[in-house]
Amino acid sequence: MKHALSVTREQDFAAWYQAVVSEADMAEESGVRGCMVIRPWGYGIWEQMQRQLDAEIKRTGHENCYFPLFIPLSYFEKEAEHVDGFAKEMAVVTHHRLIQKDGRLVPDPDAKLEEPLVVRPTSETVIGAAFSRWVQSWRDLPVLINQWANVVRWEMRTRMFLRTTEFLWQEGHTAHATEAEAREETLRMLEVYRRFAEDIVAMPVVAGEKPENERFPGAVSTYSIEAMMQDGKALQAGTSHFLGTTFSAAQNIRFQNSEGAQELAQTTSWGVSTRMIGGLIMTHGDDDGLCVPPRLAPWQVVIVPMLRDTAEDDALLAYCAEIAREIEAQDAFREPVRVLLDRKAAKATNKRWGWVKKGAPVIVEVGGRDMAGGNVSVIRRDRLYNEAGKLDSAVMARGDFVAGLSAQLADIQSSLYRTARERLDANIVRDILDADALSAFFEASPRPGWAEVNWSKPTGAELDAVVEWLKARKLTLRNVPVDALPASGTCIFTGNVAVERVLVGRSY
Amino acid sequence: MKHALSVTREQDFAAWYQAVVSEADMAEESGVRGCMVIRPWGYGIWEQMQRQLDAEIKRTGHENCYFPLFIPLSYFEKEAEHVDGFAKEMAVVTHHRLIQKDGRLVPDPDAKLEEPLVVRPTSETVIGAAFSRWVQSWRDLPVLINQWANVVRWEMRTRMFLRTTEFLWQEGHTAHATEAEAREETLRMLEVYRRFAEDIVAMPVVAGEKPENERFPGAVSTYSIEAMMQDGKALQAGTSHFLGTTFSAAQNIRFQNSEGAQELAQTTSWGVSTRMIGGLIMTHGDDDGLCVPPRLAPWQVVIVPMLRDTAEDDALLAYCAEIAREIEAQDAFREPVRVLLDRKAAKATNKRWGWVKKGAPVIVEVGGRDMAGGNVSVIRRDRLYNEAGKLDSAVMARGDFVAGLSAQLADIQSSLYRTARERLDANIVRDILDADALSAFFEASPRPGWAEVNWSKPTGAELDAVVEWLKARKLTLRNVPVDALPASGTCIFTGNVAVERVLVGRSY
Repeated sequence: MKHALSVTREQDFAAWYQAVVSEADMAEESGVRGCMVIRPWGYGIWEQMQRQLDAEIKRTGHENCYFPLFIPLSYFEKEAEHVDGFAKEMAVVTHHRLIQKDGRLVPDPDAKLEEPLVVRPTSETVIGAAFSRWVQSWRDLPVLINQWANVVRWEMRTRMFLRTTEFLWQEGHTAHATEAEAREETLRMLEVYRRFAEDIVAMPVVAGEKPENERFPGAVSTYSIEAMMQDGKALQAGTSHFLGTTFSAAQNIRFQNSEGAQELAQTTSWGVSTRMIGGLIMTHGDDDGLCVPPRLAPWQVVIVPMLRDTAEDDALLAYCAEIAREIEAQDAFREPVRVLLDRKAAKATNKRWGWVKKGAPVIVEVGGRDMAGGNVSVIRRDRLYNEAGKLDSAVMARGDFVAGLSAQLADIQSSLYRTARERLDANIVRDILDADALSAFFEASPRPGWAEVNWSKPTGAELDAVVEWLKARKLTLRNVPVDALPASGTCIFTGNVAVERVLVGRSY
Repeated sequence: MKHALSVTREQDFAAWYQAVVSEADMAEESGVRGCMVIRPWGYGIWEQMQRQLDAEIKRTGHENCYFPLFIPLSYFEKEAEHVDGFAKEMAVVTHHRLIQKDGRLVPDPDAKLEEPLVVRPTSETVIGAAFSRWVQSWRDLPVLINQWANVVRWEMRTRMFLRTTEFLWQEGHTAHATEAEAREETLRMLEVYRRFAEDIVAMPVVAGEKPENERFPGAVSTYSIEAMMQDGKALQAGTSHFLGTTFSAAQNIRFQNSEGAQELAQTTSWGVSTRMIGGLIMTHGDDDGLCVPPRLAPWQVVIVPMLRDTAEDDALLAYCAEIAREIEAQDAFREPVRVLLDRKAAKATNKRWGWVKKGAPVIVEVGGRDMAGGNVSVIRRDRLYNEAGKLDSAVMARGDFVAGLSAQLADIQSSLYRTARERLDANIVRDILDADALSAFFEASPRPGWAEVNWSKPTGAELDAVVEWLKARKLTLRNVPVDALPASGTCIFTGNVAVERVLVGRSY
């Protein structure tokens, strides 16, 4: 069977990923090191993600704000562990003017900043400084803030959506009177992310706590949602951190408690980024391109009229416009269906394959014969071929199609989730009992999935040794799933008594 | 009459502006030079602006994208006039790593960028580079793109919302096959901005073409909408540029036309920023704070229960929650009414004045007596005091209030617009016929408004002389209104034959 992309997942997963990004018009290289241009179809998906996650962030009581892009170096100097974690990858603004010199533009030596500014890699420090102004008394707590912003981390090796120098994200920041409340918030947002990933992105995840070596710099506890890509690797798709008093001590976020004593606030932070789009691609893409879950598709239905440059085209376009209006009057997921009538003057089969590669959930082709019969020809992107391996285009009465559309879109959404869920469940092994077997499991297959194993939760040097051992096998600790099996027996790394179970896998 | 702010517009307009920004919880100093923190009420207004302007930008055929924050110096070197316009105020990234030195963080000398990067002051150059990849044939045109982004211009004197080092905006960028089409687009977006300012922000504006000295660097024609603040000064609230082939020549945006010949594309750009919020404040603020037009209010109705820390509070809150549900079921401007029940444990009069200062359009107070009578006490923010100078709080039957709410919000919106329109119309003089009279007009009053005068549209040195003459009087040329009176007689500056009429005024 010939496919729309020039490379299949089986042949070369990394090249296939780039092909989808490019052929689905998601993004492209910008000419600026490590930065991409997010094109309309990619950005349209991000807008849908933003809108739906933002509603949930607000529903859980948070308000949006905006904080400065630039952070003075002195803000970072206050928290050693945090700066150690980010110093290696920070873009630094040192001048505020350019001048011409020998026909070239150069930074003006007379416009050097007294204190260089960092382009934010994350905003704990600058938001913490604001919290210290806002919080005086227990009555001012909790503070529940979110911002949608761009951040910059100077990565040496970049891949579109997965790891770019600049990326877009939301970062939530909260301050609370007690550790219990802050921990509850951390887990609440982890659960918001899990539901967003599963219900909206149709991407099943494992939510759990990161081991010590994978914690956010400055965090007391870091939680993540981990998704399994089609090559078996793990993608960390969102994180939620309980920060304790690390940042409130550094930024002086103090309040008078109800007994009149001064206390440090307990803070959290949590974020999801454009990386989620990379996860969507590697979860729902196939060898014909992308399939976008209907809840995220900028256009859930695309109508392609088979224009023939004849006098009949006008009637065909009018017929299609009527259908588009009927579709718009339908609801899916409690919102009007998003439908596009593709009027472009291009060959209909090219347009069809363009939308297949982009992954519009439902593609409706309408030719003269369809119009004459009051019909439409319907392609469901998640079931492109029939059992005989032919393109599965179903001729349907126009009224039946429109009446069934809402259910069809819901079915595509849940079917994409089910497929991904089955893949995840089938590819986590839970019966590996020693380190050799773990090594063997990951060597045995090019796309081995993950292993959930007993471990003793080592710390310090003992943990370092485990991490080194794994690194030599290109493996990482993902997280300790909140719904892992109970620990039993001994740690497969240290031989000590196991206290919990940890996920091991290759990762992005 | 005592007012909620510590300073009135009459006493000190600039101090009054800062008081509104601060007392209405719109924004605050961030501690980072020239950058502000936009707080929830200010950012909530921006979100409403974004949502409604974005819908109009999409309705007119544009798609959102995202382009890099960083622009290599070499991109700017290609267009001399453009770089001259921005070089003096560009933040420059020169390093990509920090190290510790003598206990301080410093840029790592070993991590100096080969080519420094500018933090975008505007994106014509980097978007032009993308257009040159996207456009090959006339079939690829028009390209109609918009992005919502942060930009940085290193301003020496900053004022919150009006002129900040970093600000938020949308920037539209389009490429067309013909000059006529590009000029039509430039004017289409000018009209979108005019309607947005007037219908949504309730801020009347004068749309027109900027004189040569006020053009965007690299533009062939620049158009603006100019709003009159309550101190009579002009605020440029949005601009739309016809760029001709300036950027397509610099960035090589070429296409094969339908006859097979190579041509340069004609481009446009247009933008509206968080500055609009400054315009909103200085249009609709009064000595008690802000009044937000209902179409932009994050909460259109705020319910303040008069809690008394007694057992009756629960019943009162339940009564208020019922009313809130009834209000949510109402529509205003074809959307559900946005209502907040303010449950905060604070003194009811403090809460009332907090919402007055923030400018919630309708404030509903509910006490025990209101509940007993099935009533509510309603304050309309745009008519805070009655003729006797007392707070105008009207007791209404709850059902009557809810049933009339949609009309009431519409009335507040149009009444705010009408007041501002009358002020604008009353404060443009059109009968000044010589330069001395112009001088005298602006000297005669501390808040003189604008003058629309005949001029000969001078260029080059002749224009420079006019601009200098005006500058000495703290005056600027605003724009040549699209609906100005016809020119007649001689130019008041040059004595030559007048060809059009130009607006003169003080400005932000």
